[in-house]
Amino acid sequence: MLEIWKQLVCDANKALKDLQLVKWTSGNVSYRDYESNKVVIKPSGVHFDVLKPEDMVIVDLDGNVVEGRLKPSVDTASHLYVYRHRDDIHSIVHTHSPFATSFAIRGMDIPSYTTTAANLFNDRVPCSDFAAIGEEDIGKQIIDHISDSSAVLLRNHGVFTVGKDIEHALKAAVILEETAEYAHYATLHEPDLQPLSKEVIRQCSYFYKTAYGQKEENKL
Amino acid sequence: MLEIWKQLVCDANKALKDLQLVKWTSGNVSYRDYESNKVVIKPSGVHFDVLKPEDMVIVDLDGNVVEGRLKPSVDTASHLYVYRHRDDIHSIVHTHSPFATSFAIRGMDIPSYTTTAANLFNDRVPCSDFAAIGEEDIGKQIIDHISDSSAVLLRNHGVFTVGKDIEHALKAAVILEETAEYAHYATLHEPDLQPLSKEVIRQCSYFYKTAYGQKEENKL
Amino acid sequence: MLEIWKQLVCDANKALKDLQLVKWTSGNVSYRDYESNKVVIKPSGVHFDVLKPEDMVIVDLDGNVVEGRLKPSVDTASHLYVYRHRDDIHSIVHTHSPFATSFAIRGMDIPSYTTTAANLFNDRVPCSDFAAIGEEDIGKQIIDHISDSSAVLLRNHGVFTVGKDIEHALKAAVILEETAEYAHYATLHEPDLQPLSKEVIRQCSYFYKTAYGQKEENKL
Amino acid sequence: MLEIWKQLVCDANKALKDLQLVKWTSGNVSYRDYESNKVVIKPSGVHFDVLKPEDMVIVDLDGNVVEGRLKPSVDTASHLYVYRHRDDIHSIVHTHSPFATSFAIRGMDIPSYTTTAANLFNDRVPCSDFAAIGEEDIGKQIIDHISDSSAVLLRNHGVFTVGKDIEHALKAAVILEETAEYAHYATLHEPDLQPLSKEVIRQCSYFYKTAYGQKEENKL
Repeated sequence: MLEIWKQLVCDANKALKDLQLVKWTSGNVSYRDYESNKVVIKPSGVHFDVLKPEDMVIVDLDGNVVEGRLKPSVDTASHLYVYRHRDDIHSIVHTHSPFATSFAIRGMDIPSYTTTAANLFNDRVPCSDFAAIGEEDIGKQIIDHISDSSAVLLRNHGVFTVGKDIEHALKAAVILEETAEYAHYATLHEPDLQPLSKEVIRQCSYFYKTAYGQKEENKL
Repeated sequence: MLEIWKQLVCDANKALKDLQLVKWTSGNVSYRDYESNKVVIKPSGVHFDVLKPEDMVIVDLDGNVVEGRLKPSVDTASHLYVYRHRDDIHSIVHTHSPFATSFAIRGMDIPSYTTTAANLFNDRVPCSDFAAIGEEDIGKQIIDHISDSSAVLLRNHGVFTVGKDIEHALKAAVILEETAEYAHYATLHEPDLQPLSKEVIRQCSYFYKTAYGQKEENKL
Repeated sequence: MLEIWKQLVCDANKALKDLQLVKWTSGNVSYRDYESNKVVIKPSGVHFDVLKPEDMVIVDLDGNVVEGRLKPSVDTASHLYVYRHRDDIHSIVHTHSPFATSFAIRGMDIPSYTTTAANLFNDRVPCSDFAAIGEEDIGKQIIDHISDSSAVLLRNHGVFTVGKDIEHALKAAVILEETAEYAHYATLHEPDLQPLSKEVIRQCSYFYKTAYGQKEENKL
Repeated sequence: MLEIWKQLVCDANKALKDLQLVKWTSGNVSYRDYESNKVVIKPSGVHFDVLKPEDMVIVDLDGNVVEGRLKPSVDTASHLYVYRHRDDIHSIVHTHSPFATSFAIRGMDIPSYTTTAANLFNDRVPCSDFAAIGEEDIGKQIIDHISDSSAVLLRNHGVFTVGKDIEHALKAAVILEETAEYAHYATLHEPDLQPLSKEVIRQCSYFYKTAYGQKEENKL
């Protein structure tokens, strides 16, 4: 079942490595199918290089394994918590990308300093409180803090990004690390650097939603 | 029409990714043909990996699409504004390369600290004021600030570089990021670091124009 | 003899380069066979790219070369010292990975700021005193400082990580550099940043040992 | 003539790019043949990717082109100045590697903080005064400042490393950038960081010369 999604979730997990967002076996991508509401997720502690579509685990929203011989990611309960509380989210990406994680260690939000950040994260990437790993505490922190952003810094741990599909959640993970990188550089020189104004952020967000990219039927 | 330029502009856009100057779909290269004055530019929001020459969009200097089934880059009006106001510019590159963008966030020029920077940017890479995306406001900022440099930092957004051909605009994008990288490192230690003197900058600029590289007929 | 281990130690040494933890010929991996107690180690000063399984050197715990036509790593006596003093350690990795080495230059421990670091290093990666190269002084520093961590910063030199097998020692080397990277970024902004509490570290460590990864028979 | 050296110098120039020490066309490697005293050097302003052995230029120590249809590097006169003043130097590498160049911009020596640095650079990598490009002013700065190090930071420009052969000069360029990288990180936290003592530096230097690597006949 869900063969196409096992392939795409497997590809997305491998993409995390190619995009240099993860090291060793840390990090994962999941996808919630629009029709069945079943969730496809990476197995726990497996190297990205050897991952195959048939290794993906399918669970229902209550966490029952529906298909797959391997144990799902230790973050599964938290992914499911997010899916149960936000109908609009159909993909979640988790990484420890280093610039973003350095803000998570400090418990600092990343305000939007660029038009690109404003487009994806509105006025900021919020930082959550600390949550224990396993169970759904991380999921609760994501829901409590994400608001209208598409990313959350998980205190003393790493980052989670979300989207209406895998493409959007992956893009948020890539742009989050880029955003954290130049925010780190710039605020080293100017700790009190002013972010974009709310008015500019609103305009950017509107512009990207209406004018950027190709019409659906022309997407490559 | 302009088949060779669609190939070269496509290659140059892909080169941005290989040169690690862009992430996801952000960034673009355009070229203005010396004969027809038509401009070849990347389509909006398309991944660099899948870009093909036939995806390139050809527009005239007034922004009318002359050829191509895809929507051109959202920065097209700004590229055209620059081409209309500077006869010597035939290629424009746009990226969000992280070290340079960190200066753009701070609204800081990058003074020339090295002979290589002096060669390409004269005494500095200027930083513009903020401009909204879409339409030609970004182009106006470039024209207002670039002077005799070959790069502009666009406030709270990213960078634009220019050249008499694709090779020169791409080179400026590469050397700009390298310049921003070591300027960032050095000024973290010494915020008031002295740039090169105007006399040295003039000499460097003259030297590179007269002595560097191969004669036209020996270019590889 | 030990043909399979010569292959695996050779692969692990080459992996150091692919993982961007070493440059030129610096760095090495060794493995102590559970049955024979013989140690397989990289030869001295050989480039990772040209390394072949038959170039590996096999020594006993007293340092006698048992097999191999090349000189073993100059760090061999120190690897052996560690193996003789810790029955649980069966693989050692040595690198000069730059973020971790920057802490070693300062003589600074790296406290655990993230759940991932707590899992591998408990409350910190300790920094040793200075030791001369050659002979077993480096080994003594490792044993004196490592305690229940899986990594030591060797003062003014580089890093050593250990594990019950090659996989664990390599993982520690990868996660150590990642940990040092975000610790560097975060403490530049906040030199007095608080690490995780001992209670959280204890919980993380327990969680990873009991819940992370696949059952032995399902490992890929 | 010198066919083997044209191949090796070409390979070494390409290696600069693979080792991420150069961008675009900046940087070069030369070699002085032990028998003929002729110097093989990269042509000026040519991309590393397209460089072929037959593009290399051969000059005598007075700068007369002996073979080659292309213009030699603009740094040729400076390479020759160094070769004429130091019999022991048979290869020179020039790059703008970013961490090292950030020290060159500041006019700061890099003291030896690690055993590896001490081995190659003795107590420090010295920084020269500013020299104009072209002619032999850069060569004079190198000779005036290099002493018993194997690298010089050229003020507001980049770096030069030297060796008895290509292998040693290339290694010095690689280790110089690594050294500059962790020196940059560490001194951001502790500007007055103490380097290694002269006694330790002397011991390291002696150790590496007598104990590191394989015997000549066993080199791979």
